[in-house]
Amino acid sequence: MKKLNILQKKLGHTFNDEAMLVRALTHRSAGSRHNERLEFLGDSILSMVIADALFHRFPKVNEGDMSRMRATLVREKTLAELAREFELGEYLILGPGELKSGGYRRESILADAVEALIGAIYLDTDIGRIQQLLLAWYDERLNDIQPGIDQKDPKTRLQELLQGKRKPLPTYTVVDVIGEAHNQKFTVHCQIDGVPQPVVGIGTSRRKAEQSAAEHALDIML
Amino acid sequence: MKKLNILQKKLGHTFNDEAMLVRALTHRSAGSRHNERLEFLGDSILSMVIADALFHRFPKVNEGDMSRMRATLVREKTLAELAREFELGEYLILGPGELKSGGYRRESILADAVEALIGAIYLDTDIGRIQQLLLAWYDERLNDIQPGIDQKDPKTRLQELLQGKRKPLPTYTVVDVIGEAHNQKFTVHCQIDGVPQPVVGIGTSRRKAEQSAAEHALDIML
Repeated sequence: MKKLNILQKKLGHTFNDEAMLVRALTHRSAGSRHNERLEFLGDSILSMVIADALFHRFPKVNEGDMSRMRATLVREKTLAELAREFELGEYLILGPGELKSGGYRRESILADAVEALIGAIYLDTDIGRIQQLLLAWYDERLNDIQPGIDQKDPKTRLQELLQGKRKPLPTYTVVDVIGEAHNQKFTVHCQIDGVPQPVVGIGTSRRKAEQSAAEHALDIML
Repeated sequence: MKKLNILQKKLGHTFNDEAMLVRALTHRSAGSRHNERLEFLGDSILSMVIADALFHRFPKVNEGDMSRMRATLVREKTLAELAREFELGEYLILGPGELKSGGYRRESILADAVEALIGAIYLDTDIGRIQQLLLAWYDERLNDIQPGIDQKDPKTRLQELLQGKRKPLPTYTVVDVIGEAHNQKFTVHCQIDGVPQPVVGIGTSRRKAEQSAAEHALDIML
């Protein structure tokens, strides 16, 4: 493992309690003192700090758009990018089974470790300090993000995914509507070429049910 | 509407900016200056404060159990209970279409208003103050909650729901497994008496896929 002080310089924080940093870097495959509890804490801090930043930066934007922007900023892909900026892969403490894992598993381990680091820095200092650091880590991304851009809805993403694979577009069919006019529940089937069973989506409107089905389809296909 | 000072006494906070309180109480049906942005902010603050409280109260509990306890503490049902303790229904500002709505809609409007109040108090003061208030609001619930109790997993809840309706138990079938040994994706169908199509669940293990299917089934049935 590289010297931890190089990492701490990149993070912008020198730990008072270095054991906390080591714990944040320890994947569960490497032993019982792993980072999953810190990840739980860090995830909630990150969500809050980003929500607060978006709330103040976009005073006119509705909560749906804020929620989509936040999802973009805290998703695994973004966290794994941050991890690579910190060269976090060089510092992770992994068990023998995980050392050689690549691709999806690796992305997820990196992203989780970033959340664990956030939790660890919070415990090592306070909410003000981690907020300040997170705003620095996210500075460029917060400057770049715009409501409605890059936060494509699931149907659009599914369509683009299928187009990229030169497959036919999905078809959506309402198969059930229950409840009275003001409180309806729509069930939609999304049929995709190559997926044997229709993917189910539920929602309070046809549109929401279709988006839900598209989201589940993306879960299956990605 | 009742005098707002009675509500403020119940909440334990007197607003510096009373317009913020009014906004937190205003449902989107009542006009454009509604509480949805505050709700977005408040939701993230609540999640963070509860995560932090659980992290410190349960130093030995794993993140799965913390996550389930948090879900119990921040779910709509719990927030609607808090709303009733504050008699929040008396203060909500609703449009004509929502005034008479009852049941599910009402619960959801009350719960959302509690989140909006959390966001509003945070903006009116700071994170330390809202944390202190939330710990007071949740004092009894945080003292009562225990890992593994009342945080039943989706399969258990689905089973109990069906038993309560005197229906046969659901059956789970693995219909697809893709990927290599270390990185598999399971697709499970959950068949429920009276639900025409199987409900689909996806996960990195059979168990997780079954839980996912049960969760979707609960979404459909509840």
